[in-house]
Amino acid sequence: MRLATIRTAGGTRAVRIDGDRAVETGHADVGELLARPDWRAVAEAADGPAHDRPSLDLAPVVPRPGKIICVGVNYGAHIKEMGRETPQFPTLFAKFPEALVGAYDDVVLPAASEAVDWEAELAVVIGSTVRHADEATAAAAIAGYTVLNDVTARDWQYRTLQWLQGKTFEATTPLGPELVTPDEAGTGLDLTCAVDGEIVQSANTADLVFGPVETIAYVSTILTLRPGDVIALGTPGGVGHARDPKRYLQPGQVLTTAIAGLGECRNTCVAEKAA
Amino acid sequence: MRLATIRTAGGTRAVRIDGDRAVETGHADVGELLARPDWRAVAEAADGPAHDRPSLDLAPVVPRPGKIICVGVNYGAHIKEMGRETPQFPTLFAKFPEALVGAYDDVVLPAASEAVDWEAELAVVIGSTVRHADEATAAAAIAGYTVLNDVTARDWQYRTLQWLQGKTFEATTPLGPELVTPDEAGTGLDLTCAVDGEIVQSANTADLVFGPVETIAYVSTILTLRPGDVIALGTPGGVGHARDPKRYLQPGQVLTTAIAGLGECRNTCVAEKAA
Repeated sequence: MRLATIRTAGGTRAVRIDGDRAVETGHADVGELLARPDWRAVAEAADGPAHDRPSLDLAPVVPRPGKIICVGVNYGAHIKEMGRETPQFPTLFAKFPEALVGAYDDVVLPAASEAVDWEAELAVVIGSTVRHADEATAAAAIAGYTVLNDVTARDWQYRTLQWLQGKTFEATTPLGPELVTPDEAGTGLDLTCAVDGEIVQSANTADLVFGPVETIAYVSTILTLRPGDVIALGTPGGVGHARDPKRYLQPGQVLTTAIAGLGECRNTCVAEKAA
Repeated sequence: MRLATIRTAGGTRAVRIDGDRAVETGHADVGELLARPDWRAVAEAADGPAHDRPSLDLAPVVPRPGKIICVGVNYGAHIKEMGRETPQFPTLFAKFPEALVGAYDDVVLPAASEAVDWEAELAVVIGSTVRHADEATAAAAIAGYTVLNDVTARDWQYRTLQWLQGKTFEATTPLGPELVTPDEAGTGLDLTCAVDGEIVQSANTADLVFGPVETIAYVSTILTLRPGDVIALGTPGGVGHARDPKRYLQPGQVLTTAIAGLGECRNTCVAEKAA
């Protein structure tokens, strides 16, 4: 099953994607749908107003996650190429919902940054409330997978030891297009990031050091995960900041973030308008 | 004016504190009250059911902030004693609402940590929506001040370069007892932290490197701040981890976090029950 949050004249709506049609489930967005313990059955049975898929205006698949937790340093090949040791624990940092944009929205390059970089990532969306989850419970807590680009202002990321301020600029982080349930998503997915059609990152999610299940179990040791929470699983090699010369996103460039079977985000970079 | 969120048999309620009485404002909590642009007038005029203040069961003053942003390395004397340079930019990291507890609730020492430490802090609560705020707008966006203890699992904080996982364990972070509006709170406030009555931290908020107004303006460059968002302004010297020998919180100890004029949180530390 594939779910999305669309924008309509009357506000956002959760929809189930059926081929070329999108059928409303009766919820304001996918986050509100997932808050129902019976969300799978409700979504499967939904028979609300239908929309043509090609004309959809997509919001972030979960517009207001209670938590967005990101994992850094999590692709094996990238860790090796950087000469780092395989980490014993996942590196976790946060992002706030104000950073999110829809799969085809503009990504806003902050006026305050001169070094905005790409980070294509697999994201997992939580579908039930879990704490101290073992691996089976963690696996069962996965609502589905989607695509995220953890667009990062490198100059702000490295202003201090903590990365948050470079990671959560307003309207920088595409999330979507759809939530794909685990049965349909599969595992070992090819992930790519392209700038104006040039592939700049390419990896397979099988190379993740801490996979979705292990990461959910780990995070749930710390705090309760709830439906609609998003965990972004980190990015592979190929970011612009690590290149020689360094490369950053420029206004007008199109950033395409794709994961096989999950779909793609295709976002035009625009300069922030003067305040 | 002083506001709080109390727990009643019918759920949480926002109240205005009038001496020994607490008068309901008609909102589920202080966060919901602050979401009204006219919250000051509404709170001042409120005349709902009244409660005796001594018998109040306090929830976190804002139970579900949209964002909790913390500033690290922010007291001048502490920076000097550590031999560090005065920072050019605030160090920002996040905490999630699951970490919060009320002013008199138990603080849960996670079973997974052997090094839980105290960090008494002044917190500022946002009262209006601001982005790219200048100092006057940032000052006007302050709903009020309250007390927070950024209780930290040091072993988890330092597992990786990013502090988040040590900073957001469930039910570790007292927030309260009350939100005190700026006219009543004043500035240059004495802040203390005590463990079983022994003062372990003592400072004055006049020693903050980045004060509330400057920090709000800075953060609003990055993203939109909204009513109910909380910014914790960092802790002074005297944490247990920096002592010789190191000291950490133990089950049964009472952690008292006080700021002159704002009140105090008084929390008993309890060991996490087996999952």
